[in-house]
Parts: sequence; C-alpha cells; structure tokens
Amino acid sequence: MRATVFAGPGDVRVQEVPDPSIEQPTGAVVRVTHACICGSDLWFYRGISQWEAGWRTGHEWIGVVEDVGTEVTTVRPGDTVIAPFVYSDGTCEFCTKGLQTSCVNGGGWGGATNDGGQGEAVRAPLADGTLVVLPESVDNDDRLLTALLPLTDVMGTGHHAAVTAGVTRGGTAAVIGDGAVGLCGVLAARRMGAERIIALGHHEDRLEIARRFGATDIVTGRGEEAVGEVTELTGGGAEAVLECVGTQGAMDTAVSIARPGGTIGFVGVPLGVEALNLRRMFGENISLRGGVAPVRSYIPELLTDVLEGSLDPSPVLDMTIDLDGVPDGYRAMDGRRAIKVMVRP
Amino acid sequence: MRATVFAGPGDVRVQEVPDPSIEQPTGAVVRVTHACICGSDLWFYRGISQWEAGWRTGHEWIGVVEDVGTEVTTVRPGDTVIAPFVYSDGTCEFCTKGLQTSCVNGGGWGGATNDGGQGEAVRAPLADGTLVVLPESVDNDDRLLTALLPLTDVMGTGHHAAVTAGVTRGGTAAVIGDGAVGLCGVLAARRMGAERIIALGHHEDRLEIARRFGATDIVTGRGEEAVGEVTELTGGGAEAVLECVGTQGAMDTAVSIARPGGTIGFVGVPLGVEALNLRRMFGENISLRGGVAPVRSYIPELLTDVLEGSLDPSPVLDMTIDLDGVPDGYRAMDGRRAIKVMVRP
Repeated sequence: MRATVFAGPGDVRVQEVPDPSIEQPTGAVVRVTHACICGSDLWFYRGISQWEAGWRTGHEWIGVVEDVGTEVTTVRPGDTVIAPFVYSDGTCEFCTKGLQTSCVNGGGWGGATNDGGQGEAVRAPLADGTLVVLPESVDNDDRLLTALLPLTDVMGTGHHAAVTAGVTRGGTAAVIGDGAVGLCGVLAARRMGAERIIALGHHEDRLEIARRFGATDIVTGRGEEAVGEVTELTGGGAEAVLECVGTQGAMDTAVSIARPGGTIGFVGVPLGVEALNLRRMFGENISLRGGVAPVRSYIPELLTDVLEGSLDPSPVLDMTIDLDGVPDGYRAMDGRRAIKVMVRP
Repeated sequence: MRATVFAGPGDVRVQEVPDPSIEQPTGAVVRVTHACICGSDLWFYRGISQWEAGWRTGHEWIGVVEDVGTEVTTVRPGDTVIAPFVYSDGTCEFCTKGLQTSCVNGGGWGGATNDGGQGEAVRAPLADGTLVVLPESVDNDDRLLTALLPLTDVMGTGHHAAVTAGVTRGGTAAVIGDGAVGLCGVLAARRMGAERIIALGHHEDRLEIARRFGATDIVTGRGEEAVGEVTELTGGGAEAVLECVGTQGAMDTAVSIARPGGTIGFVGVPLGVEALNLRRMFGENISLRGGVAPVRSYIPELLTDVLEGSLDPSPVLDMTIDLDGVPDGYRAMDGRRAIKVMVRP
C-alpha cells in the first residue's frame, strides 16, 4: 500500500510500504477513509522532536474495517470505525479509569513500528479497546464523517482542557491559543455551558472561527497586554483557563490570568517550558491539571452530540487533500496557510 | 505589652511594644494564651525571606477576647478564640468560596503593621470573618487547647494537602516531609480514610510520630532511591501525593512518585523551585493542586474532631516555652532540636 513516511525535517513522502495484515488475535486491519495532519506533526516536520527517516506518520483517522483477529469481539469487517490518537487495551487499571493514554499496553500510531493514519490502511492493535464503531447511518455521510474526524484528537483534546480546567455552567473560561485545539477548546467550553468564553490568539481568521464556536470575547494582545485585558474583562481572572499552546509564554499567561482558586487545564505539549510561576500558583491556589488527552474516553459522548447535530468541530478542517497531497498539506500547515488539513486517501 | 520582634537574621527579641487597642469597628483585641513558632518563621530567621528589623512575629495563636469593635457580632469579650494564620473578612467572593487566603481585604499577622501571635496580645482585624469561638468547655482544658493549637496552621495545612491531593477512602497517599506539616498531612490522610500512607522523611524521631499518626510505610531514602522505593511499594506510584516541603528536590520527588492520573497537593512554600517535570505531568496527567492553606475554612470541621477526641495533632508540639523563651525556641527549631515550639505568653 501507499503511506506517508518521514524522510527528514521538511520532507515527508508518500511511498510504497508493506500491506498491513493481522499479526495478533486482538488486532484489526482498517482501510483509512479520512485522516488528518496534526499541529503536533509539525514538531518532527520542523526537526524539533527527534524522528528518524523512515518513520510513518499520522495519528488521526477514520476507516472501514477489512479484517479482524480471532479474539476481536466488538469490531467486524465492514464497520466504519473511529480511532483515538493512541491505542489502548481498554481493560487495564488506567483504561478502566478513563486514562487510556497511560494504558500499560498502549502505544501510538506511526513511528518506527506501527502504521500511521496518513496512508491507505492501518494495522490497529488492541481493536476492542481502541476502535469505536460508528452507526451504519454514518457510513456514507461525508458531512458527518468530517465532523467526527476531529474527535480522533483535537476535539477530544480541547474537551480535555475544558474538563480538567473545570469549566462550569454559567462560569468564565479563557482559552489560550487559536489553533485547532484552542478552537475546539472554545467549542468544548460552550458545550459545557460556560457563559463567558475569552479566546486569546493572534490570527484573525482563526479567531473568527472562535467567535462562531462561542467565544464571547477576543483578546489579541501578547504577554502582559493580554494578561491585563483578561484581568480587566473578568474582574480578576478566569476561573477556568484552557492552555492549548504549550509554550513558556502561553503557560505564563495561563498562570497570570487564572482567578484565585482557579484551574488551568493544560493540553499544549509543554515543549520548552522551563518554569512555572509557582509563587502565584501557591499564593492563589491555582491548580494545574490536564495533560495528554485520553480522547478514547471522550469519543462516545462527543460522538453522540455530533450525531445529534449539537456539536460540529469540522470548521477547523479548512483544507482537504488526497494522499498524494500530504506533502503539500504539511507545507500548508507549516506556513500557517491551513489550520488543519484533512486527508482523503 | 511585650512581644517578639525580629531584629535581624538569627536574632529575635522580646521587647516592649504598644498595647493593642480597637482601631476599627470590625476589630478585636485578644490576649494570647497559646502561640507557636512555625517552620516558616525560619525563613526570615535564617535571612532567606526579606524581613526588616522591627517587624513583629508569629501567626499561630489562641487567646481570650478582651475587647471588640462596635460592629463585631460573633465574638464577645471573654470568649476563647482560635485564629487562622491570616485574617479575612468572611464575606468576599473568595471567603465565600472557602479560599480565605485570597480574601480581598485579608492580611497576615505580624510584619510591619500588625501584631503577631508571639506576644501578649493581638489586635485582630475583621474579627467576625477571622476568629472562631471555642466552646466554653474548652476554656481551661489545656490538653484540648494544645490539641487545637495546630489548627491555626500546620494541621489545616496538612489537611489542605490531603484535600487537594484528593486522598480517598481506601486509597494510597504518599506524604513528602516529616516536619510538622508533613506529620499533620499523615494525620489528615488517615482521617480521610487512606488505607496506605507512605511517609517520606529523614528524621527517625519525627517518622516515629508519623507512624503513630497512621503512616503504614516509611521511606527514608533521598532522590531516586526514594522514588524507587515508593514506586515499588505502590506498584507504580501513589494516587495522592502530599508535598509538604517546598524544595526543588521534594517537588521533583512528588512528580516522580505520583501515579498516572494522580494528584499532588502542594503546601510547602515553593522557595527556590525552579522547574517542574512538566513532561511527566503532561504525559501521565498528573495534577498539581494546593497552595497556601485556607485554614479558616477547615477549622470548624477539624475542631469538631478534636473536641470529639478523634483528632489530636498535639504531638507535633514537642517543646513549650514562655514568652521570654521565644529566642530559645527559634534556636531549637533552627537547630532541628524541636519539631514545633509552643509559646505560653
């Protein structure tokens, strides 16, 4: 089959790779129908994270099951399934607690040993614990499938930020970042009933989506200026802060705009964050929660809302390509010409 | 009256100061019967925090009300009252939320402008919001008053660590630090029903109290050794970690011994903590909560337990002095010859 392979910084290629087949009785082979390029894919693309040439890419995908191992009970050939961005056994202590990202048998798509989502098909380990079967009514509904695709990562991640930040009905949430995750964070905060949602970002086109997603206030300043604006808007800080960037500046802003007793839900991978203002966190009892999102545990409830029509994160997917277009897709995201790219292999 | 005054690093003196009197209609004057020297007093004593000569000391005290302002309604002359280590109005947004340490009108005892607890009497601002009247039955019960005294700070702080770390009935808690707060953290974890309580410390006499307070396991190693021991004892980390020290090493240990999905309740003032292992916190969804303890909100429930006889933190008070003995008390705590010193002015 054909799949995307990392060749070096700034260089991904679509090339022939071995066809996936069942290796373990708990696995499945799935033909990918929808996939994404993720903001986090830019780390290896930009040479920030250590990747090796030949590693496979893509961790967000929906597809149709082609084959399953003998022990698989919940997934059958022909099912359309959605996958979270990591696989998990569904039975260990952490999966049972809804923290599938810490599954003792789990792992990630792509890399050195697994198929990635940016290809024609995937061998999915631990199919019962990982894959969620979509209702048959969805099978050929491309609008719905597109709306469901962000549940593989960014929508679940924005939701995790909102959940861990403790967004409350009628409360105030500040969302740092106007990337796909930040925008989904706005959507999640609105879904959880926040009355006031302040979106912090720097890109007018993205902030326009934030407004459509429910942001009531937009703050475009940086650093101290942004802190001052949010502090004034909220009369002393937001109860719930969704940190959806992961840089030192974003984390500093998060601590500064949190209201005393408030909580930061951080889902931006903290690359290069050296320190936190622990003095303020201590003095004002500001909590830091969150981390890599266990999106597997959120898919069922978010799926329900998408199918009901009350949730639609698809506007974050603002460019669509086929498999051959993946290198272009990376260039578009790297150059900020696209928020998030959908791949139709 | 006579009270303790900071003269410079390593030098506190008991000297004549102005008698307190009612200045605001919301204030009270209280004659101190019991006070403490706190581990945090050692920061100015050791010259770590910036204090000026002439500042007054002590923030933990119980006393008998002598006079109240015209607007005070809950406290009367003759009442025995217990004070949390900060005063608060009891009515602002944060007090209403139980976060009196962030009271918009609050402040601390001692320092440049207020009386401290290590003296004969205190002018207490915001008496209604701050002071808790003890039942008359306690008035002359010195055993009970001694057991109640830690509720002014260290017991409430240990309890805050346990609450924010999310100690659960039947769960596992690890308590970092064998100072008065850490020992009270053990007591709090037991009170909240933790089945396994691992105390980490380095002082055999203090760890013996930890055992009496309910610690089921003792870990005396440092750094990686301690991490290894706790990880092995718990099969992968403790769900609730009470960080009761505040140093870089203690915070590093806290992050390392937290179980995936677990929570650190940090109550050790983070002096000199430069960085956190955010990568692990992110990857394993480890939360950081806590901060300066709103002990005012905890006094009622802890008081009930002390009066009922089910809670007794008094073993942390292992040395008693009179007011003239305060300089000796500081020396004893500075030299680790006492865990915590009680002052009987």
